[in-house]
Amino acid sequence: LNLPLGYRYAATYAGIRKTSQDDLGLIVSEKPAQAAAVFTTNMVQAAPVLLARQHLQASDDEVAAILVNAGNANCATRTGQRVAATCCKALAKTLKTKVESVLPASTGVIGVELDPKLITGALPKLVAGLAPENFEAVAHAIMTTDTRMKVAAEEVKLAAGTVRIAAMTKGSGMIHPNMATTLAFAMTDARIASKHLRPMLKQATERSFNSLTVDGDMSTNDMLVLLANGATKVKPDANERKVLQELLNWVLESLAEQIAADGEGARKLIIVRALGFKTNADARKIARAISNSPLVKTAVAGSDPNWGRILAAAGYAGVPFDPADLDIYLQRVPVCQRGLAADFDEADMKKKLDEPEVRIRVVHKGQGKGEARFFTCDLTEGYIQINGSYRT
Amino acid sequence: LNLPLGYRYAATYAGIRKTSQDDLGLIVSEKPAQAAAVFTTNMVQAAPVLLARQHLQASDDEVAAILVNAGNANCATRTGQRVAATCCKALAKTLKTKVESVLPASTGVIGVELDPKLITGALPKLVAGLAPENFEAVAHAIMTTDTRMKVAAEEVKLAAGTVRIAAMTKGSGMIHPNMATTLAFAMTDARIASKHLRPMLKQATERSFNSLTVDGDMSTNDMLVLLANGATKVKPDANERKVLQELLNWVLESLAEQIAADGEGARKLIIVRALGFKTNADARKIARAISNSPLVKTAVAGSDPNWGRILAAAGYAGVPFDPADLDIYLQRVPVCQRGLAADFDEADMKKKLDEPEVRIRVVHKGQGKGEARFFTCDLTEGYIQINGSYRT
Repeated sequence: LNLPLGYRYAATYAGIRKTSQDDLGLIVSEKPAQAAAVFTTNMVQAAPVLLARQHLQASDDEVAAILVNAGNANCATRTGQRVAATCCKALAKTLKTKVESVLPASTGVIGVELDPKLITGALPKLVAGLAPENFEAVAHAIMTTDTRMKVAAEEVKLAAGTVRIAAMTKGSGMIHPNMATTLAFAMTDARIASKHLRPMLKQATERSFNSLTVDGDMSTNDMLVLLANGATKVKPDANERKVLQELLNWVLESLAEQIAADGEGARKLIIVRALGFKTNADARKIARAISNSPLVKTAVAGSDPNWGRILAAAGYAGVPFDPADLDIYLQRVPVCQRGLAADFDEADMKKKLDEPEVRIRVVHKGQGKGEARFFTCDLTEGYIQINGSYRT
Repeated sequence: LNLPLGYRYAATYAGIRKTSQDDLGLIVSEKPAQAAAVFTTNMVQAAPVLLARQHLQASDDEVAAILVNAGNANCATRTGQRVAATCCKALAKTLKTKVESVLPASTGVIGVELDPKLITGALPKLVAGLAPENFEAVAHAIMTTDTRMKVAAEEVKLAAGTVRIAAMTKGSGMIHPNMATTLAFAMTDARIASKHLRPMLKQATERSFNSLTVDGDMSTNDMLVLLANGATKVKPDANERKVLQELLNWVLESLAEQIAADGEGARKLIIVRALGFKTNADARKIARAISNSPLVKTAVAGSDPNWGRILAAAGYAGVPFDPADLDIYLQRVPVCQRGLAADFDEADMKKKLDEPEVRIRVVHKGQGKGEARFFTCDLTEGYIQINGSYRT
C-alpha cells in the first residue's frame, strides 16, 4: 500500500476483548487535518458517536487523532459519555493537542460498561508505538467478527504532485445501507478544506457503504471519517477534486465489496445491478430489495439459480413495473426474459454459481436510465452460528 | 374442530409435487357463499391471483368453490393464465356452477410451467371425494415446507343460533406483513353480506397475517379468502357482527401464531409487543423492525439475552424516541431499563429463553397509548438448509 504522508498509526491490546488480539487503535495526523464524517442514523447512538459529533463541531472540522476500540461499543451504558470523554482527554494531554480534535470510536457489544482505565492505561504504550507503517495494525485492531482486515489505497499524480488516499474499515454483520455503515477511516495527504470534503464523502458513501447490506441491521456505532492533512502541500483545484472524487469512490467501493465478501458466514460476494428503471432511486429500491432478501441469499448459498425469488423480491421493492418488461441475468446468463423462464442449462448454471463472486443483473425494458449497484453476500449456516452466540 | 355447516372438502395427489403427498385441494360451499379477499401487493402476481380477482369482480363476490394446488405457484410462466382458466372451467363444469364463482389458488415454485392436465385429470376423483370431514385433508394438501398443518376454529351462540368459523393456512417462509401472507381460507356458516365481510377481514388480517414476519420476503401468490355461506340461516345484526369480528380475529391470530411457530427452521415462536408509543403505527414500526432483525432472531435461537440488539433494531425503525425512555423485557424479566442494562441473572435468563415461546416487550415511557404485537420466529441453521436447496 502506498500510504498518504503525514499520518502515524499504532495498535495494542488493552484488555477490552477477552482474546488477546489488539483491541485499541490510534490514527494521528502530524498536523491537524480537515475532516468530514457521516454517522449512524439509528435513534440509539453510542457515546463515542455523540461525542465525535460534538468534537467536530467544536473544532470546526479539525481532527488531530482518532482513538478507536473494539470489543465494546460503549453504547447504552450508564457511564458511556464519561468514559468517551475521559479517554479523549487523556489522549489529548499525551499528544499535546486540543481534546476536541480527538475523535473517539467504538465497536463491539452493546450495554456492557467499558472501563476507561483499560484505555487510558494503554495510551503511553500506544502513543510510543506510533509509526507510519502501522496502518494495517490498526485495521486489524478494529476487527470484530471479521475474518480478514479490510484496507484499500490509491494514488494519483496531479499537476502539483502525487497525492494518496488510504482507508480501512471493519464489519461483517449488522450492516445495512443508511449512512456510513460500521467504522471506516479514510486518509488523504492532499490539502482539501472540509467544505469540499463533505460532498466528496457524501457521494462516495452513497456509492459504497450506502449500497451495502449484509443482514439489514444498522449499528448504533456506525461512523465514517475522511481526513485531509495536506502533508503533500498539494491543493487540488475544482477539476482535480473530481479526479480525487473518483479515487475516493474506488477506495470506499473496494472497502464495501470487502465487507460484503466477508459478511458473517459468507462464502460468496453478491453484486446486484438494476438497470433501465425510471430513476436511480427506483433502481436502488430494486437492487436493495433483492440484496436484502434472505431467500435470494440462501439460494445463492446453495448455488440454486432460483430466479423466481429474484423476481419476487423485485416485485415487493415498492417500484411499479410490469413483470413482462423484466430480464434477469445470473453470472451474465439470461435466466428470465420478459418475466418468464429463459432457456438455460441448469447444471451449468449451478456450476457458475459456485464462483466466489455472483452477479445478479435485473434489466427493465423501459425508457428509463435509472441504475444502481448493491453489494451483499450469501446467507449461510455460518451467519446463524456466529450470531447465535456472539456475546457468550 | 367444530366445522361450519354447508361446506365440503376434498384433497388428492395430482402429481404436481415430486413426492406423493396430496397437492390438490378443493373447498365447496353447498350454496354459493358471500366472499371477501385480500391479495398480495407484490408487483409480480401469479396467474391464479389475477384470475381470482377477476372472478370475484365478475361474480359480485359470490364463491362456490376454491381450487388450490401446492407444488407449483403457476407464476411467471408462459401459460399461467390459460392453465388457471382451464382448471376453473373444468371444475365449474363438473360442479355445474358458473366459472366466475370458482377461485383458483396456487403455491410452490415460481417460473415452472404447470401442466393443467394434472389438475383437470384429477378433478373427477377430487369431486367424488368431497365430504364435510375432509377439512384437514385440504389443510394438509396446501402445505409446502410446513412441518405441520395449520387450522383453527371457533363457534359462538348468537340470538338466532350458533355459528362457526373455521380456517386453514399454509406457509413457513417467504412471509412478510403486507397484505394477506401465504394462502389462507376461512369459512363461516353465518349469513353475512360481502360488504360486511370486507371490513371484518381487513381488521382481522391487520392483527394477524399483517403482523407476522418470518423472513421479510413477500410471495407472488398470497391470498386470503373469507366465505360466508349462511347455511345456518343465522344473520347476525351489527352488534353480533362485532362478536363475530372477535371470533375471526382469534381464528386468524391463531393461524398467524402457528405460521410463525413453524417458520422455516424455527425452534421458537417469538411474540414482540411494543407499548406506550405515540400511535399504533409507531408501535407497529418498532415491533416490526425487531421482528425482522436477523440479529435479534439469531440471538433468540442461541438463547442469548442480547437486549442491545433489540434496542438497536428499535433505533432504526424510523420512530423518533429517546433511548432513556425505553424499557425492554424478555420473558417478562426487565433486561433494559431506561435504555441501560437492568440487573438480571444471565444464566437464569438463558434458561428462560430456552422455552418454545419467547416474549419480547418494549415499553416506551411516554404519554402515548400506541401499541402493537408482532409474531415471528427464531432464525436457525434450518432456515438456511431449507432455502439453500428448495428447488432441487
